Amino acid sequence: MVGHVFYSEAMPSDDTFLRRAVAVLTAFRADDDGLGAAELARRSGLPRSTAHRIALDLVEAGLLERQGPRVRLGLKLFEIGQRVPRQRVLRDAAVPYMSDLREATRQTVHLAVLEGAEVVYVEILGASDAPKMPSQVGGRLPAHATGVGKAILAFSPPEVVQRVLDAGLVKVGERTVVAPGLFTRELARIREEGVAYDREESGNGILCAASPVLGPDGEAIGALSVSGWSNRMRLAAVAPAVHTAALTLSRTLAHR
Amino acid sequence: MVGHVFYSEAMPSDDTFLRRAVAVLTAFRADDDGLGAAELARRSGLPRSTAHRIALDLVEAGLLERQGPRVRLGLKLFEIGQRVPRQRVLRDAAVPYMSDLREATRQTVHLAVLEGAEVVYVEILGASDAPKMPSQVGGRLPAHATGVGKAILAFSPPEVVQRVLDAGLVKVGERTVVAPGLFTRELARIREEGVAYDREESGNGILCAASPVLGPDGEAIGALSVSGWSNRMRLAAVAPAVHTAALTLSRTLAHR
Repeated sequence: MVGHVFYSEAMPSDDTFLRRAVAVLTAFRADDDGLGAAELARRSGLPRSTAHRIALDLVEAGLLERQGPRVRLGLKLFEIGQRVPRQRVLRDAAVPYMSDLREATRQTVHLAVLEGAEVVYVEILGASDAPKMPSQVGGRLPAHATGVGKAILAFSPPEVVQRVLDAGLVKVGERTVVAPGLFTRELARIREEGVAYDREESGNGILCAASPVLGPDGEAIGALSVSGWSNRMRLAAVAPAVHTAALTLSRTLAHR
Repeated sequence: MVGHVFYSEAMPSDDTFLRRAVAVLTAFRADDDGLGAAELARRSGLPRSTAHRIALDLVEAGLLERQGPRVRLGLKLFEIGQRVPRQRVLRDAAVPYMSDLREATRQTVHLAVLEGAEVVYVEILGASDAPKMPSQVGGRLPAHATGVGKAILAFSPPEVVQRVLDAGLVKVGERTVVAPGLFTRELARIREEGVAYDREESGNGILCAASPVLGPDGEAIGALSVSGWSNRMRLAAVAPAVHTAALTLSRTLAHR
């Protein structure tokens, strides 16, 4: 049925307007409330009159909300975002196992997916006495510096790993692995054992054990991790737990 | 600073394109994965060629993702949605109290806000043996048929309540209150006591006690609730708990 498919050959029409609208939407950061036209223009790189006009259009369309003389991201974007299948399917299946992991380990549990050279956190169940961590739901961190990122990369095609190496292994925490040779050897070790470790690589004083959630083809579709204070959590004690939960979750998803 | 404000008098420019883009984005439902052009056209009410072209533009802009011959909502929408202040500020403050409520009551805990005549669920912490409920995070239910909706409406301006009455009190569950006089008397009772009840009004066999999260002006900015099986949960036992947590959360928010 010809009309049902999206041809790769078809050229998209002029989407300048849409690109500008996306530039305005992505100008808002996680800790922003309302922004004015000047700030929107500065962050989106658009002329102020253009940013102002597009913000008004986005208010009309219900994607932004007025807040006095400023605008902020509207609730409709939250509603649409919750329907995104890549996070919803994985999270809905994962949350019961994440709860069990938190109860069994008394540590913070993360669920993340890979996007380019970064991980995006899909769900976080925090322990009550957890350290302040750099991760937040919907937020990103460089994949190479995190347990979940390394667990996913160890079970990803070579071109995906290459993209991360090409992006550069920047130093994020005190002990981020930044040498490409060391990094690829570590991925080989993770592939063998099924568990990745982050020893103060994403943040000082924080340890993490992570394990991949595998799809039917054996490639990672995400990863689970358990994180805690380096002086209060033993990696050897939590690693088998996170590995078990990730294997169970992978099997659950395969049976759907 | 003139350029910093959004004039209410300013007329938005032609936003036909944006309206169409929003029609395509909102055509996706919570349980959809990829959709084809014909289905997108049918749901959005756009001609098929238009739906097809806009979907390609949205892929280019990173808001949709290709999935074989279909398209689906992209991860970027989830990331933007997580930054929406109306849900983020409330949820970040509420989650610790919601965890405590779930632990103390062993029941399912909801957090919701009002949007028009409906409530939007911002967070749900499910109990392990909870009944299947009609609520989901990012999903909507008619406000008048839910505990959280009634708790919010009892602490909202008269015009907000009138909008709900104008929308019509449709029957949702076996015992939804559909008589306007009865409904407004119930709101008066909730205003007195600070707790709203849902006795199989949103779903059969399910009970709920809810309490408003109040802003500095005494108006509701959201509501917390505890829900469970009608034959396993006593409303009298959970009502003081949810009322306590909602009062604590209101005070926490006021001190920020």
